[in-house]
This record gives sequence, C-alpha cells and structure tokens, in this order.
Amino acid sequence: VATLHVPLDRGKPVALAKQIQGHLERLIREGHLGDGVKLPATRELAKSLGVNRATVALAYEEMVAAGHARAHVGQGTFVIGTAAAPRTAAEPRARAPINWTGLLSRTARVVAAEEDRWRRLGSGDADRVAVSFAGGMPDSDLFPTEAFRQVLNRVLREEGDVLLQYYPARGYPPLRQYLARYLLRFGVEASPDEILIVNGSQQGFDLVARTFLDPGDFVAVEQPTYPRAVQVFRAAGAQLLAVPWTREGPRPDVLERLLERHRPKLFYCQPNCHNPTGLSLAPETGRRLLALGARAEVPIVEVGVDPSLYYGRRPATPLKALDGDGVVIYIGTFSKILFPGLRLGWVVASAPVIERLLGAKQLVDLHTSALLQAAVQRFCERRLLDRHASRVAAEYGQRRTALVESLRRRMPEGVTWTEAEGGFSLLVTLPAGLDAAALLPAAIARGVAFTPGRPFFVDGGGERTLRLSFSAVPARRIDDGVRRLAETIKTAMKRPRASSGDRAAVPVV
Amino acid sequence: VATLHVPLDRGKPVALAKQIQGHLERLIREGHLGDGVKLPATRELAKSLGVNRATVALAYEEMVAAGHARAHVGQGTFVIGTAAAPRTAAEPRARAPINWTGLLSRTARVVAAEEDRWRRLGSGDADRVAVSFAGGMPDSDLFPTEAFRQVLNRVLREEGDVLLQYYPARGYPPLRQYLARYLLRFGVEASPDEILIVNGSQQGFDLVARTFLDPGDFVAVEQPTYPRAVQVFRAAGAQLLAVPWTREGPRPDVLERLLERHRPKLFYCQPNCHNPTGLSLAPETGRRLLALGARAEVPIVEVGVDPSLYYGRRPATPLKALDGDGVVIYIGTFSKILFPGLRLGWVVASAPVIERLLGAKQLVDLHTSALLQAAVQRFCERRLLDRHASRVAAEYGQRRTALVESLRRRMPEGVTWTEAEGGFSLLVTLPAGLDAAALLPAAIARGVAFTPGRPFFVDGGGERTLRLSFSAVPARRIDDGVRRLAETIKTAMKRPRASSGDRAAVPVV
Repeated sequence: VATLHVPLDRGKPVALAKQIQGHLERLIREGHLGDGVKLPATRELAKSLGVNRATVALAYEEMVAAGHARAHVGQGTFVIGTAAAPRTAAEPRARAPINWTGLLSRTARVVAAEEDRWRRLGSGDADRVAVSFAGGMPDSDLFPTEAFRQVLNRVLREEGDVLLQYYPARGYPPLRQYLARYLLRFGVEASPDEILIVNGSQQGFDLVARTFLDPGDFVAVEQPTYPRAVQVFRAAGAQLLAVPWTREGPRPDVLERLLERHRPKLFYCQPNCHNPTGLSLAPETGRRLLALGARAEVPIVEVGVDPSLYYGRRPATPLKALDGDGVVIYIGTFSKILFPGLRLGWVVASAPVIERLLGAKQLVDLHTSALLQAAVQRFCERRLLDRHASRVAAEYGQRRTALVESLRRRMPEGVTWTEAEGGFSLLVTLPAGLDAAALLPAAIARGVAFTPGRPFFVDGGGERTLRLSFSAVPARRIDDGVRRLAETIKTAMKRPRASSGDRAAVPVV
Repeated sequence: VATLHVPLDRGKPVALAKQIQGHLERLIREGHLGDGVKLPATRELAKSLGVNRATVALAYEEMVAAGHARAHVGQGTFVIGTAAAPRTAAEPRARAPINWTGLLSRTARVVAAEEDRWRRLGSGDADRVAVSFAGGMPDSDLFPTEAFRQVLNRVLREEGDVLLQYYPARGYPPLRQYLARYLLRFGVEASPDEILIVNGSQQGFDLVARTFLDPGDFVAVEQPTYPRAVQVFRAAGAQLLAVPWTREGPRPDVLERLLERHRPKLFYCQPNCHNPTGLSLAPETGRRLLALGARAEVPIVEVGVDPSLYYGRRPATPLKALDGDGVVIYIGTFSKILFPGLRLGWVVASAPVIERLLGAKQLVDLHTSALLQAAVQRFCERRLLDRHASRVAAEYGQRRTALVESLRRRMPEGVTWTEAEGGFSLLVTLPAGLDAAALLPAAIARGVAFTPGRPFFVDGGGERTLRLSFSAVPARRIDDGVRRLAETIKTAMKRPRASSGDRAAVPVV
C-alpha cells in the first residue's frame, strides 16, 4: 500500500510509535492488510502522519519483533498475515446493530422477496455438473475477442480523450447511425434520434418501467416470458396479467380481453427468438397484437433479439417494422450476438418516448461508456459483426439440432418440448405429476443442470416445465447431457409422487 | 448496408422489381439511406428476399435511371441522397398521434419538470465562449489515455473472454480488493464484501434511493449541494429538507431538529471537496453529524471525492472512517480523479446494505462492465493512478489559486466567494439585488460562462450565487475569464434593478 491513514492522539500517554504499531496490528488482525502486503515506506508514512521518520521506523521494528511483519533490507517491510477474525468480534459496538430491514423501501422489499423465491429454485451447483443447460448466454469460446481488442485499441488512439470524458446521454452518434441502417435489414425504420443507447436490454426494461409505471398499474406480459424483465415490472409496483403463448405467439383474444378489463399500461413480449421457448410469432398474430395495442394506446414493449440467430423458419418481421402508429418500444441488445459483458443495448421508439427515456437515463447513470460504444461501432462498420453473426448462428443451429434430435431419441413418453426456431433455448414440459424444481437436485447428482420453468410463468404455473439452453454447450456434449436428464426423469416417473418432493425447501405449488 | 428488408406482396399487380424500387426510393427520400451508402449486392439482396437476381438488378437500374443511385462497375450501386423530408409528412397516420404525456409515470413527470427548470437556467451557449467556468469535469488534456490503452490491451489479452461474458453483479474481485486497501489511506476500513461496483456515483445515488425511499419520504440534504443527487431523490418522490452549510459544514443543530420533526429516511452530504463550494467540514462537525445519524438510525449518504484532490488545508477524515455503527453509505467514483467516461464508481456500506444495493443493481443493469473494471484495477495496481493523482492535484491547485487571486484582484465590493480547499469549483455570491441566472446572457456575450447557483439550493434560494469550476480551465486563461465576469457584474450593479431581469423566461423567485 502506498500510504495509510493512522489516527493519532497526541494527548494520549501512549507513545506515537505504539499507537501506529497498535493500529497497523489491528488492521492485520482484521484482515485489512493481508499476508505479504508491503507497508508504506517509513519516509512516506511519517510525512503523511506528520511525525518523525524514526517514530515510524520504531513502530515497524516492534511489529517485526512481535512477528506481525518482516523486513527485507532495501525492499521494505511486509505484513505477516493472520487468519482474519470477523471485525464485529474485535470492535464491540456502542449500540445494537441498525435494523436495516425496517428501513427498506417497498421496491427493495419486492426485490428481496423475488430473490428469495429464485434462491429456492436455484440451480446453484450448476457450474459443477458435467453438462449444464442452465446458462442462457452465448458461448465465450466463440467470442471474437482478438478482433475486438484491435478495434478498441484503435479507437482509443484516435479519439480516446473525448470518449473518456463525460458524454451526451443519447449515445455515440456514429453507433446510432449504424443501428439506424442495421435495423433496415429487419424492416425497422428509425432515425438516429429515435434510438437511445442503454446498458443492455435490462436497463431498457428499467427505463421503460420508470417512465410509464406507477405502483398499482397493470402490465400485460406474454407467458412464458423472460423473468428478469418481469422482475423489473414487479419492482415498479406493477400487477402482471398473463397472455399465454400458443405456437402462433401470445393470444390476441386474451390480450384484447385484458385491455378492455384492466387497461394495462404496457404489453411486454418477445416476438422472435423467444426466451425460453425459442419460438417466433406468426405474422398474422403480430398484426393483430399491434392493432390492439395501437387502438388502446397501450405501448408494446418488444424485445428484439437479433434475428440473425434463427435456425428454423425465417424469423417474423419485428412488430416495430409494422408499427405505423409508433406504439412499439423496441429494445435491442449486443449481449446475445456479440459480448454480454459490454452491457450495450438500445431502445427504438418514437421521438417523444425517447426524450422521456433519455431523461430517465441521465438520472440513473448519466450515460453509457462512449468508449465501448465507439469500439462496437467500429467493429460493426468493418463488418466484423456480420461475419461473427453468421459463424455463431451456424454453430448454435447445430447445437439446437443436436438437442432436438437427442430429445426425440431419449425422452420417455409424455415429455414434450418446443421446437426452437431461434435464440438460445427451448422449453421442455414434463408429464403430469412431476415438478421440475424438485427434479433438479437429482439431475445435478447425475451431472446435468437446467433452469426450472416456474420463473418464466407470471401467474404461478409452469412447475412441469424446464428450460434447456443449448447455446453454451458444445454439440458433442449435448447427447450425453440429454441422456443424464432422460434417466433422471425416468427414475422420477417410476417413483410414487410424494418422494419426488424430497427437497423440503422447495414448496410445490 | 449489408442487406435490407423489403416487404414484397406477390399478390399485387405491381412487378416485384417495381416494389423493390419503390421501397428503396422511399427509404432514400426519408433519409434512412443517406447519400453515398452502398446498396446490398444484387446476389445477397435477391437471396434474402427470395427473388431472382435479375429482379433486383432491374430495380437498381431503374433507380439509376431515375437519378436515385449511381452504379460503379465492379464496386456496386450507391445511393444519391436527397435532403430528408420528415417521415410523418410522407406517411399519413391512420389515427391521431398517441398522447404520450398522458401515459407517463409520476417519476417521469417529476424528471420532465426538473429538466424544464434546468433548461430555463441553461448555460447552453457555454461551449462557444472564450472562457467557460461552467463545466464541472476534469480536464481531458490531462488524461493518461495512452497508459490506460496499454493496460486495457493487456487485460483483454490475458482474460478477455471472461471479462466479456456476463459477470457477477458485485464487481471484479481484484478491483474490490484494491479499493479495500486504497480506502485505508483515508481511514476507511471495509472488506471487499462491503464494496459494490456501480456505474459512477450517479448510479450509487439511484440504487440508494430505490433501496430506501418510498414516495412521500423525507430526505435531509446539505445546502448548497450537488443537484444531480437531489434530482434522484426528488424523482423517487422524496420531500427535501435543507441543512445549510456554514464554513464548518452542514449545521448539526439544524439536522438534529429535522431528525426530530420529520424523521427523514436519509441524510445526504459531501464532507470533502464539496461541490459547489470546494469546502471541507470541520472534524468536530463530522463527529456530531455522525452521532446524530447513528442515534436516529438515519443512514448518512456520504459522497467521497478522492481526498487526493485537495489544495487548502488537509481534507477531513471521511465520515465513513469514524463510522463504528455502520450508519454511513459511502459513494466513491473514478470520475474526478481518472476518467468520467468510464462510468465507474463504488459504494461502501455494511454488509446488509450492500446485499440490498446488489439486488437493485442486478435489477437495473445486471452488472458493470468487467472489462473496464479490470483495466482500472490494473491501472491502479501499477500505481499509475497515484502518479496521475499527484500530477492533476498540483495542476488543479494552481488553477484554484489563480482563480482565487484573480477574484481578489478584480471583483467589486460586495462580491464574496468560498475559498475552495478541494474539488473542482467554488461558489460566488453576488451583491443583493443581482440574480446570477439573469446575468448569464450578458456574461456569455462578454465571453465567459458559469453555472447559476439556483440548482444547488433545494429550498428555492441561491439566486445570488454562481459556481465557478476551475478544473477544466488552463491557469493562463483564468484571469481573462474573471476579468470578463467582473466587468459583467460591475455593469449590472450600475443599472437599476429592473433591467437586470431582461430575460423574461427566468422567473426571479
């Protein structure tokens, strides 16, 4: 460490060297200064504390003598660490600890309750299994990291000083221009001013929720759906109304009824590459949903996974492409097609909506890193994204086919699944009487993990479903994973119902 | 563009080539395809539309003939752009535009109203003046961009694939470990688990507000204070209570009275390098504020600008360093001491608070870019931050001294200012009868800009104050800027009061 703050009391009868020694030894004991950390040079510490250098040297010598430090001539003094004791034990408090729970906002309590529910469904050990279908992320083995390093380097050389300063909240103009042209491929026509750069689609959900939702409002949501979006609506105090998916997409007749009865503030759906099913909605369904939203003036929040990631039939046109009334708020992301870790996404909406989302964006974090925006824009302009997208679409397509074929071959009668046409996953439904969350420990014991389906259902159903993500599993491992899963299911089917719920922590509802 | 979506109606009597031509010409007319943009290769477009290649070639030939494109043999076909007509004119809507204002949440309406107020105070032309004291940012001419490029490069080579994947929300562990050691310099003792990485201090405010505030709650706030923090509390529905600064810091007696009468949920202050005044609170004041917060169990939200940035007396110990009860939530940032554009900050608080802030962080954007976190950690570990900090502290110190000396020399009787001891700015108070916002147009006309003080006051005062930021003004320009400002003030003092309010848009309250 370069220097350290040591509180000194010159009125105390304890010598200054003793005070310094005592403070440093406490920091070591409590783990703040770990084994091998170099203590500040005596000259520097003496200067910053306003004491004689000999005073610091004396303190260090005493510490060496007491076995808390070792001195190397010409190199300095180094900590000899101890196993850290918890700080609370060493520092008795003046009063009882603060009751933080009582101070939390309603939002924080909703989030805490959601986290508890998730934890109970948790696939916490998924990382240690032979084959994990639990991670809904792109495969980092396919990342074009080296090409990205080169563009990032270049952009730092060319305009680093500007990109590292505060930046307008709307986003890097060349990236918004690129996106405006890019979206034309999918029929979405937007000017750069109708595009706002955000920190991934998750921030898009949050900005939309802040801008449109008051506690108690209704939000209509496709079902099944992406739980992290739903969580944002719940945290904003919204009540959720489920619009069930059929093979053609969310049911327009149900949406129509909900619009009449509850006047929801938003309708949320993923028309293509749907997470968790991998399905796309039928064009006719899309037109009907759009007409309903426009007539009722209920904004449709559409998540547009890059339609390059399709493996089955051609993806449907995004709703935003047919949106003559400007009722659709389209949220896009580079997380699936490029790097999730950049946290880079965008929102396309009509100008008055973008203005309000922009206000919210400034409020929550001022702006998204312009450096990362510029690097991605260069990456895209050089057509590196196009090249990468066709490469990964081919690879993920093989994995999807391997998974579907393996399911056909191995799954027992009564198990069904969606035939994913895009995205990263498909949804499996177990025979009546089985509960996916209850099955998970047995599956993990057999070396395979998945995501229980309950969080994808907003109205408490979905116990019999589970999501299998194929994107991050090499094709050669897939059949082995399905074999382990099929065995787990077969074993559970043979047992009487009661014993499948052997994880008492998971309430079967 | 690589490819384009063209909606084709095979039932229409219009030939397919004609449909393609019509669609592309509309995109050009509306500005979606700008001058010089290369159209997709005929082979690619034909393939993606499922038509004969000759059909696309025919459409392109007609566009060239009509003057909307030009063909270069061997290179392709390029758009000849027109001045874009607004799209709404070209596309008559089926129904009246959506009344978005009526759909906004209460939060969005508060934010919109705040933006309006700011716009009316706006120093919008500040960029075009000779000397601008309006920008409260570090000077990008001093940025260590090249050194940062090298560490970023290295970190991408070493662990790029992991850093570009989804990452745990708590943040990059080595950065949290570094911060734990770094904070010891200022007497703040925190384990890495008591530190959460966020997107700049602005996100810190937002996460705290979400976690503790419900609409109608009270928040006690130092006055003057940083307006962007206050804006977050207001947007969360809080009512603000002002605790005025004296030379010693926010008045403990006022805080005590407010705690008794209103039981606020939070107390917000900047004990060091205070924005806008540049002052630090007296140690005794800090201890009193801390004792009040702990006794009432009202969390103190402390913004800790890096105490390296001090120029006057040594900065006070952060409140967090004296916080035996764990009542302080400390928000730190790399924006002032390194690069604002990275959007990288951190929150230090006791473990139960960090757990709740972590839940909010996951909700709003999953996590902060691990790539940028790792690059900054390497930068710091190599002591590049220490080197940079002493360099800029010396430079900003010179600017601060130049500003104070120039104010002494040039300002007329009746003008006062705070003697900044740290940070980027100081606060000037004009003689009675003058209004800083009303003065701004005249100042800009004389070639100098500043920030009117009103937004720094939560209870509607501060008309006579203005903030001068010296951090981004080279020392040699400072005296010229003060000369222009002094002349503006002297001229205004000579005029009868009424005529100084010649900007009708600024209501003097």
